[in-house]
Amino acid sequence: MAQGEEEGDIEIEGGERKPLREPLLLQKTPSRINTSSQIAIVGANICPIESLDYEWVPSSPSPFSDLIEFQWMLVVSSGFRIYYQAFATYASCNAAFAVIAAVLCAYIAPAAAGSGIPEVKAYLNGIDAHSILAPSTLFVKIFGSIFGVAAGFVVGKEGPMVHTGACIANLLGQGGSRKYRITWRWLRFFKNDRDRRDMITCGAAAGVAAAFRAPVGGVLFALEEAASWWRSALLWRTFFTTAVVAVVLRSCIEFCRSGKCGLFGQGGLIMFDVNSASTTYSSADLLAVIFLGIIGGVLGSLYNFFVDKVLRTYSIINEKGPAFKIMLVITISLLTSCCSYGLPWLLPCTPCPAYLEEECPTIGRTGNFKNFQCPPDQYNDLASLFFNTNDDAIRNLLSLGTVKEFHIVTLFVFFVAIYFLGIITYGIAIPSGLFIPVILAGSSYGRLVGRLLGPLSNLDTGLFALLGAASFLGGTMRMTVSLCVILLELTNNLLMLPLVMLELLISKTVADCFNRGVYDQIVTLKGLPYMESHAEPYMRNLVAGDVVSGPLISFNGVEKVSTIIHALKLTKHNGFPVINEPPFSEAPELSGLVLRSHLLVLLNGKKFTKQRVMAGSDITRKFKAHDFAKAGLGRGLKFEDLDINDEEMEMYVDLLPITNTSPYTVVETMSLAKAAILFRELGLRHLLVVPKIPGRPPIVGILTRHDFMPEHVLGLYPHMNPHR
Amino acid sequence: MAQGEEEGDIEIEGGERKPLREPLLLQKTPSRINTSSQIAIVGANICPIESLDYEWVPSSPSPFSDLIEFQWMLVVSSGFRIYYQAFATYASCNAAFAVIAAVLCAYIAPAAAGSGIPEVKAYLNGIDAHSILAPSTLFVKIFGSIFGVAAGFVVGKEGPMVHTGACIANLLGQGGSRKYRITWRWLRFFKNDRDRRDMITCGAAAGVAAAFRAPVGGVLFALEEAASWWRSALLWRTFFTTAVVAVVLRSCIEFCRSGKCGLFGQGGLIMFDVNSASTTYSSADLLAVIFLGIIGGVLGSLYNFFVDKVLRTYSIINEKGPAFKIMLVITISLLTSCCSYGLPWLLPCTPCPAYLEEECPTIGRTGNFKNFQCPPDQYNDLASLFFNTNDDAIRNLLSLGTVKEFHIVTLFVFFVAIYFLGIITYGIAIPSGLFIPVILAGSSYGRLVGRLLGPLSNLDTGLFALLGAASFLGGTMRMTVSLCVILLELTNNLLMLPLVMLELLISKTVADCFNRGVYDQIVTLKGLPYMESHAEPYMRNLVAGDVVSGPLISFNGVEKVSTIIHALKLTKHNGFPVINEPPFSEAPELSGLVLRSHLLVLLNGKKFTKQRVMAGSDITRKFKAHDFAKAGLGRGLKFEDLDINDEEMEMYVDLLPITNTSPYTVVETMSLAKAAILFRELGLRHLLVVPKIPGRPPIVGILTRHDFMPEHVLGLYPHMNPHR
Repeated sequence: MAQGEEEGDIEIEGGERKPLREPLLLQKTPSRINTSSQIAIVGANICPIESLDYEWVPSSPSPFSDLIEFQWMLVVSSGFRIYYQAFATYASCNAAFAVIAAVLCAYIAPAAAGSGIPEVKAYLNGIDAHSILAPSTLFVKIFGSIFGVAAGFVVGKEGPMVHTGACIANLLGQGGSRKYRITWRWLRFFKNDRDRRDMITCGAAAGVAAAFRAPVGGVLFALEEAASWWRSALLWRTFFTTAVVAVVLRSCIEFCRSGKCGLFGQGGLIMFDVNSASTTYSSADLLAVIFLGIIGGVLGSLYNFFVDKVLRTYSIINEKGPAFKIMLVITISLLTSCCSYGLPWLLPCTPCPAYLEEECPTIGRTGNFKNFQCPPDQYNDLASLFFNTNDDAIRNLLSLGTVKEFHIVTLFVFFVAIYFLGIITYGIAIPSGLFIPVILAGSSYGRLVGRLLGPLSNLDTGLFALLGAASFLGGTMRMTVSLCVILLELTNNLLMLPLVMLELLISKTVADCFNRGVYDQIVTLKGLPYMESHAEPYMRNLVAGDVVSGPLISFNGVEKVSTIIHALKLTKHNGFPVINEPPFSEAPELSGLVLRSHLLVLLNGKKFTKQRVMAGSDITRKFKAHDFAKAGLGRGLKFEDLDINDEEMEMYVDLLPITNTSPYTVVETMSLAKAAILFRELGLRHLLVVPKIPGRPPIVGILTRHDFMPEHVLGLYPHMNPHR
Repeated sequence: MAQGEEEGDIEIEGGERKPLREPLLLQKTPSRINTSSQIAIVGANICPIESLDYEWVPSSPSPFSDLIEFQWMLVVSSGFRIYYQAFATYASCNAAFAVIAAVLCAYIAPAAAGSGIPEVKAYLNGIDAHSILAPSTLFVKIFGSIFGVAAGFVVGKEGPMVHTGACIANLLGQGGSRKYRITWRWLRFFKNDRDRRDMITCGAAAGVAAAFRAPVGGVLFALEEAASWWRSALLWRTFFTTAVVAVVLRSCIEFCRSGKCGLFGQGGLIMFDVNSASTTYSSADLLAVIFLGIIGGVLGSLYNFFVDKVLRTYSIINEKGPAFKIMLVITISLLTSCCSYGLPWLLPCTPCPAYLEEECPTIGRTGNFKNFQCPPDQYNDLASLFFNTNDDAIRNLLSLGTVKEFHIVTLFVFFVAIYFLGIITYGIAIPSGLFIPVILAGSSYGRLVGRLLGPLSNLDTGLFALLGAASFLGGTMRMTVSLCVILLELTNNLLMLPLVMLELLISKTVADCFNRGVYDQIVTLKGLPYMESHAEPYMRNLVAGDVVSGPLISFNGVEKVSTIIHALKLTKHNGFPVINEPPFSEAPELSGLVLRSHLLVLLNGKKFTKQRVMAGSDITRKFKAHDFAKAGLGRGLKFEDLDINDEEMEMYVDLLPITNTSPYTVVETMSLAKAAILFRELGLRHLLVVPKIPGRPPIVGILTRHDFMPEHVLGLYPHMNPHR
């Protein structure tokens, strides 16, 4: 047995001693051809830029479609000479990808810029903004994200994948797209607001599940961050969706195990495995963790502050036109290239550690210990972080038992660079997620603290990096349970759960003292009328009647066609109250609410009468239920489609069959705060305000989402203190 | 180095060879004294019942108090002779514990019987039933559960721990208990419905977190099963609670690591670790998993069906009085003893496997391979399951790489016995959780299927047992995400997640075809007026005015004291509408709603006037805000506490300062379904119904929770089809 062991030793020894290979710089023979490079063989024989390899990598499929993200990975390792040429190649390749992404974004679908999570969140709150989930947005989101990540920006693909998932769900939910000639009849069952909202929640959950390979985390993300209304049927539907994602993802990873899909599926179902870590910790470690959380919270809220400022600045530039957008993208791209190419020069080289299973230093293709400008047996640790995929960089930062792999100075430089690059990159005209920049900055910050506190703490620096990432995520995004589960599913270390929970709680609490979560800030910045789940304090001093505005247009139960046409033409209102008047009732009374879209369908059907009489069942016979089903965005009848001649204009139409006779109402003296809660909790679009004292017209006005917005209320009552 | 290895080998060898110990049956010397037994040394020298050891074990602390569950473990291993005497000892000990639990339950707090989860669920839905969360219930729940588990019943401690957590939260939430002279002034901030509800949700989450050592699972359980309303602040609060639970639990386990707390903390933070399992599976395995899920779903719904029938039968017996309750408990206890003692005799002995690190067979104290009636080198595998703590039995069933440890017949007998014992045990007058019986039955079922499908499948039988438990849990409790996360945190195998999700989805879907979840059934059976989150279909055919009942009692804005006293005495209503009449307004108009509890406080203050005039600010000066704060259950002013003399009876009191002037209202023609949604989503207690046509009294009636119950509505309209 002892002999066998020795033989084993020799084998391992042999495995470690890779076949001797001379550094490329010494290979002066012109016969060497770089076979793996497809595009940029700049000076293949005279320049030491050995491998500007672009590896074609499909990654993280979404369950709904053949969404395959093409992730291009750019690996540059350079030697001693002609650095400017190398830099020019590197920066121009990056800029070229950046321009493609920016052109797609600026000209085809401006709504695809940014993370997409705030937009999905706003949609699920009830804001049906134009083109948020349109097919063109979907297209740009997918390809823009691929080129954006390939351009070497400090951006993630997670946010865009959530938006992508929501877009696909929307496409399915409205039965395909008529504009792009893809329609499915069997999908028309989703043609109502609630089912469509459920579909999109499921899509967002699927996006997270695919991006992080975290099915339960996806469900919780959709619950905690995306959805505004929640019911148990929805929980069940999202859970089903992410279960399908998990099974599909697992099959794909299984299929790609042999490496035939490039980098796809690297790390298996668990992306950043730290399962093997020992997790005994003392009270000194707990103090370190609390310290990490407090500083992480402060830095996280500072991140939000800077992102907000930068977004406001960029929006001025972006408003000037697509050309300016593209210019901005190119500027940031060059800056990023300068940082990632320039900074490693400032740091010293590190000798390769002995007894390493990995190749060290790696020259060309993927690998951890980048040679960069260093002598043969050394590596540049900062280059190892910059010239890697984001996933690999995170994996390096979280790696266990590699305390000395990265210097303290390296970690500091990387942290500062990524922190500020992340801030200035968000807001340019490319699809850009926030998760990866925050995780990168957080884990380098955590590892840095881990190195500094090294002598005092038993925790591995890799675990410090994990906790740092948790503190940054908690400090910027302010989620708790979902981040906790996502981190658990990313790292597969259940025993770290108490520490991660503590970290998230501390950093969120600290950061909440300063400002709001980054997605909430962006929603506000975009001017989307988001309804918070609580009423603002000043609303308690107002009543519903105080904020109802505008002259109210209402219809009789049986109304002249010309009156309706006139009202539809003049206003953009989506709902009109219907008032029954004598002779159809004893006194004027509120009959209900009729929707603009239903009026258009009714008028288009031309079931008019010459006299002012109720038509009743005639009309219900003429139409089928699905005529009034909610059409997709930008579809359905438009006012311009109507063709009413002069004779018909003088006729009457019975509105009562299409009137919602049970609209929710509040009395005009109802507290505005309570009306807001009612509006929000029931997910209404219109809330009718009725008078308190009889003898007046039976309706005072209609409250819509915009009437509850602080801008509107405080605009009406400018002297009101918004904070009490 | 090779020499060192050899030395190590020898040491390991030495470690495995335990000091030789003769089986106790051979020790005939009368000098042997059983030192570890405290109570039942029945025939210590002549009888082979060597160890009826009662081990005192504090287990699973809750964060709110020094809740320490004393778990008594009963281990009986017997030899060849005097079996009847052994059985008598065993059965009578069990019965004694059972009687203690039953007496506590029957005489002190009948509300403590059963799981407690349905009651917590009902409370969080807004049902303030008497004594659900009273301190006496808390006391009986803790000690009744200890004695119930100690009596060897097939019951769990998880459900009672959820109830315990909720009770403690309630005690804290109402500022302690005045009856038991424990009050805290600084806790009076929770004196409103919403904060108290939040506290109790957190308590329930803490219960699950402590019971399963699953902090995230606890949050999700509270979300999915317990809570009826959810908002992000609550998510954050429950997450904080369970984080504290996790930290406390970890410290306790760390403290008890050396074994000084008995069985407490066994298994560390992960109770049933199957992390080491290989998780490659083929499509044949997937088929097996689907099969397992379908049958598991059917068996789960059958379990619910039987539990329902048994509960209905038992409730007839239990209604006859406490003595009958105790008789029933004793009967079931004897039946359980007979099963667990008698069934192992029917099965053959198994030779101990060679090369085992554990002691085999174990005689006395805890251990896996029970000798029971077998010859020295053999063990009885069914006895190993029955004569173990529930946790250890589950651990045995989930154990990996031990395919042959349990025979197919053993698993079948155990499964059938536990399945039916679980059904007949729930409903007797002891605190009894459902989780453990279901997990035990499910994992034995899963392991049985795993053994039967062994030749076809690559999955370990332990993993089959895990999937079987998942399918049973999904089939009975119908939760998804929370069960999934709880199972993940119990077993620490992230790679099994897709399979567990699939299993839960399949079994829930199958079981939903037959009946409802077990907790919903119990809520209905107890007659608690639970508001579902959706409206029943027949409600769409009714309007709010159709179900308003009873003569309505309303007050004037300034009302005579005697009228109020009269109304309070005659009715049990909790809310009264206030109507302003001339001369205080032009026409009779609805001013708002006044609560019974506020009226009592107002009358007690005796701020009356001789004339019928508005008092206004006089009254607000007299009272402070917290006078009207919600008192705890069974506290606050009662009608009997009022002391109004005849002179005061003729005086007037101004109700307007204490009137809620913004009550939610619906028009009488509002669809009942929409009114129900409004009532449920906003968590109301009273919903005012106002007339549609002016000129009538300004209020038609008040809708309360009971008016929406199917019994009430279908009682009024018996010919209505309840399903459409």
